[in-house]
Amino acid sequence: MNLNPLNTETLQNDASQAINYLSHYYENVHKYPVRSEVEPVGFNWIASPAATELEAIVLDWMGKLLNLPQQFLFSSGGGGVMHGSTCEAVVCTLAAARDRALDTHGEEKITKLVVYASDQTHFTFQKSAKLVGISPRNFRVLPTYSSRDFGLSPTKLTETIEADISQGLVPLYVCASVGATGSGAVDPIDGLGRIAKEFGAWLHVDAAFAGSACICPEYRHYLNGVEFADSISMNPHKWLLTNMDCTCLWLRNPKLLVDSLSTNSEILRNKASDLNEVIDYKDWQIALSRRFRALKL
Amino acid sequence: MNLNPLNTETLQNDASQAINYLSHYYENVHKYPVRSEVEPVGFNWIASPAATELEAIVLDWMGKLLNLPQQFLFSSGGGGVMHGSTCEAVVCTLAAARDRALDTHGEEKITKLVVYASDQTHFTFQKSAKLVGISPRNFRVLPTYSSRDFGLSPTKLTETIEADISQGLVPLYVCASVGATGSGAVDPIDGLGRIAKEFGAWLHVDAAFAGSACICPEYRHYLNGVEFADSISMNPHKWLLTNMDCTCLWLRNPKLLVDSLSTNSEILRNKASDLNEVIDYKDWQIALSRRFRALKL
Repeated sequence: MNLNPLNTETLQNDASQAINYLSHYYENVHKYPVRSEVEPVGFNWIASPAATELEAIVLDWMGKLLNLPQQFLFSSGGGGVMHGSTCEAVVCTLAAARDRALDTHGEEKITKLVVYASDQTHFTFQKSAKLVGISPRNFRVLPTYSSRDFGLSPTKLTETIEADISQGLVPLYVCASVGATGSGAVDPIDGLGRIAKEFGAWLHVDAAFAGSACICPEYRHYLNGVEFADSISMNPHKWLLTNMDCTCLWLRNPKLLVDSLSTNSEILRNKASDLNEVIDYKDWQIALSRRFRALKL
Repeated sequence: MNLNPLNTETLQNDASQAINYLSHYYENVHKYPVRSEVEPVGFNWIASPAATELEAIVLDWMGKLLNLPQQFLFSSGGGGVMHGSTCEAVVCTLAAARDRALDTHGEEKITKLVVYASDQTHFTFQKSAKLVGISPRNFRVLPTYSSRDFGLSPTKLTETIEADISQGLVPLYVCASVGATGSGAVDPIDGLGRIAKEFGAWLHVDAAFAGSACICPEYRHYLNGVEFADSISMNPHKWLLTNMDCTCLWLRNPKLLVDSLSTNSEILRNKASDLNEVIDYKDWQIALSRRFRALKL
């Protein structure tokens, strides 16, 4: 790589032009229209404070519409983030659950971690578990029955977890669906949540499409037990007619997500982040760059 | 879950209205404008054949502009895909590399896999490696020097790999940057590629922003050695002024990616996919649903 030495005359000339342009722009900024094509790229808070704050507010609004427990709202130490798809949300929660488990049990236990779901659960959970390094052998697809409306039986879950533990395995993650894609099955969150808690497993509630219905008081009972969940996701880009892509993910303890996904890079360092007083959404998702989705929701 | 019994009179009435609406729409479809707001959701080929075929064609075009070796084009068994970000592309290639290595060495070796990069490499590689279950202890950040234009030294890489192997570790993945974010450093792909090949590691070329410049013959030499790569990515959403988000990822052997990311679900089964004669881009990325990005590129 051959870099030419700096020509200071050119630099001064160019810089002066740039500064004049910026000054002029700044002085006249009120005369410019706000163009809808301009999209902020809110890596972190400092890159777009308004986009970040708005996203946090909108997630709290949506959480309140769903009557989520306080623990999922920013005001109570929880909080939400917008992803492009449930798949991404699930990958992130699985990574957070995995890293919490490895912290407790040691890194070499990664081959012992087990994920539990029903035969109605969306296949993205199997894909996501494999992505974060969980062996497909350790993904339990538990049978459901029409006599139980295809809901995942807490008894079955307990039996399976106990059998796994007796084999030296570690229960990592339980998925409860509210509206499975194939059958619309609703898992009993309350029952599954108590078991997940007992065995120290992460409970994720996947309410991708049916979650929207739970905004209505007469359907809200399907989310009963969500207070046991570590995370819950739903897609406004389904029944809420928001355009693709828009998945809401709420965490009881966002720090676990951030611990798993944060990166320290000199190029992104800034005072606001260093003070830990702002949300850097880059640490709540897989990618660094991100779309601004709060307004459309 | 209490489902109300079906009222056949309502059903017949509603269905008849729906069919009338559809028939009318079909008969008059030529009178409707094609709205730019309508975006196909091309999970797989059958969901949107045109979107899929167009994406494949555009990726081959861009590959030819970069003068990539034939092996990365669909006509030669390779192929490309559009992702939202380099981060996602890297996660997918790391997962494919990991699963190939685990197939060879056994699943329990996941704690032994090592990723190599320079101190100029984008931090997304560390985040991505952690995401797919590679211990941060097994991520090697090799030092670079201004006297070598901050390029990763093949000698240093060889020494580090050999030291790791002597400790019972398995070299998994080497990242070569063409235009590192912090310094613009270009790694010697040719030299690094020969070593990666010798030790059976996956070579990824990250040409996120500088790759665009390699379209120009006078800069193309920075990609020399890309024929050793398993994958290469670049972002038209940087210097090519395509709007966010648009990352191109090419694979020498897309089957490895598909093996790692594919999912078999009854709800997505179709004849075209079963015949293995089409591209199902859902198996080339993290998420199931996807944006249509080919036209803007």
